[in-house]
Amino acid sequence: MTELKTAKRCARKMWAGDKASKALGMKVEIRDVGSATASMTVREDMVNGFDVCHGGLLFALADTAFAFACNAYDRKTVAASGNIEFLRPAKLGDQLRAVAAEEHRGRRTGYYKVRIDNQDGELVALFRGRSISGEEQLLGG
Amino acid sequence: MTELKTAKRCARKMWAGDKASKALGMKVEIRDVGSATASMTVREDMVNGFDVCHGGLLFALADTAFAFACNAYDRKTVAASGNIEFLRPAKLGDQLRAVAAEEHRGRRTGYYKVRIDNQDGELVALFRGRSISGEEQLLGG
Amino acid sequence: MTELKTAKRCARKMWAGDKASKALGMKVEIRDVGSATASMTVREDMVNGFDVCHGGLLFALADTAFAFACNAYDRKTVAASGNIEFLRPAKLGDQLRAVAAEEHRGRRTGYYKVRIDNQDGELVALFRGRSISGEEQLLGG
Amino acid sequence: MTELKTAKRCARKMWAGDKASKALGMKVEIRDVGSATASMTVREDMVNGFDVCHGGLLFALADTAFAFACNAYDRKTVAASGNIEFLRPAKLGDQLRAVAAEEHRGRRTGYYKVRIDNQDGELVALFRGRSISGEEQLLGG
Repeated sequence: MTELKTAKRCARKMWAGDKASKALGMKVEIRDVGSATASMTVREDMVNGFDVCHGGLLFALADTAFAFACNAYDRKTVAASGNIEFLRPAKLGDQLRAVAAEEHRGRRTGYYKVRIDNQDGELVALFRGRSISGEEQLLGG
Repeated sequence: MTELKTAKRCARKMWAGDKASKALGMKVEIRDVGSATASMTVREDMVNGFDVCHGGLLFALADTAFAFACNAYDRKTVAASGNIEFLRPAKLGDQLRAVAAEEHRGRRTGYYKVRIDNQDGELVALFRGRSISGEEQLLGG
Repeated sequence: MTELKTAKRCARKMWAGDKASKALGMKVEIRDVGSATASMTVREDMVNGFDVCHGGLLFALADTAFAFACNAYDRKTVAASGNIEFLRPAKLGDQLRAVAAEEHRGRRTGYYKVRIDNQDGELVALFRGRSISGEEQLLGG
Repeated sequence: MTELKTAKRCARKMWAGDKASKALGMKVEIRDVGSATASMTVREDMVNGFDVCHGGLLFALADTAFAFACNAYDRKTVAASGNIEFLRPAKLGDQLRAVAAEEHRGRRTGYYKVRIDNQDGELVALFRGRSISGEEQLLGG
């Protein structure tokens, strides 16, 4: 099985159980190993008291892209920490796209970056995530 | 009006429009100026592919506590950045509590920390947020 | 041996080899377990092209306080990451004091915060550090 | 004057006053606008109690590369915050190279990343910096 095939199979496996990302209306796409794109439209139930997308849901979008990017290698990998810089508010109806890319992957620890852009190509947020991989496989027998 | 009264009025105003925090089943409480507690129970639609609470929703809980803590002064204040360290997974049904406290508040920039604990008092996550305040008032005429 | 005595012995052991902190003219003091104070005066050879203390040397001061705080338990502990927010420049001759305190200590990972103040009690920087402890003891036979 | 010429002139101006980077034996090179390379050899007076390069001096190396990268536009720009992940210790005699690159530059705020490698091309640390630009010019009349 090629590496990209493995990455896509891992993604399908994760997606099957990812109720949270589904409930937030996300879509996830894998084109390269160690990379992932997650997209989401800002809904009525996602805005906060200032009428813009809740920062936690922006983080959630980036975190999903990150999770799918770092789980490409058939080793169960979890987020250890995340950092987000909010550059521009996202508004009701905005179509957001988070693209995750690998910065460095060691034996256990990985570093990923995610950019969130809106439908006009404007940068909404910059995210960094640190992941930890265990020995457990993601794809079962 | 006392400072605590102002803080509570700001919180009510924000809460009125905060559809995102409501949709996630959160409750928010203000006891002191510059502090806030947000609580949330991990629902079926909040778990990810590893059957634990999606990290983005943990961040959202902390971010809500942070937002209510930093908007206590009748000046519209937004999150500029946030960092979260995931220490322990939160499981379906876990009752989470995020307590936000002010670390430093300058003229425009504020620094807040949030701890998320579960129902057993175990530490789930540590969050830091940086806020920026504008001149605009939160409570209108 | 009491816990504080252990902490102080660990500090002495570390200090003996810490040429970097000595070369920067630092002083370190341990008053409580899991806490440390490091002080430093901004010298001529510490300023950058804007005539203020180089940010890296502010970080170094905080990092030293952090290192002595997290090595209080006779287990060799190293910095895994650090974050610093620069709030106010430090000038030539400023007497800086960094106070490190423990936020959370798990089996292997610890979280510490450090505040750097100047001689007028003004906040210069806020630092966070994450530490990792191995099994190796610090105090030898 | 081309953009690269401006960047190099800004770097010369900054270097002239940067006693801290000189005292640490650094060298700085500008090849592209918004990018900078800083190099440093780990000296006897740079090691800590564990006989490896003090983390603050690794941060200082990255911070210098960052400062020269973000001051390429003839606007006085300062570091607002920095984050470093320590991946591998640097030892006495190691020749370190920090390469800074721009991730995003808005009107006032810029985001930069820096990688520190050793002489064997091994990754020693990952650094992120956030910069703030004022209106003041760097190059005088």
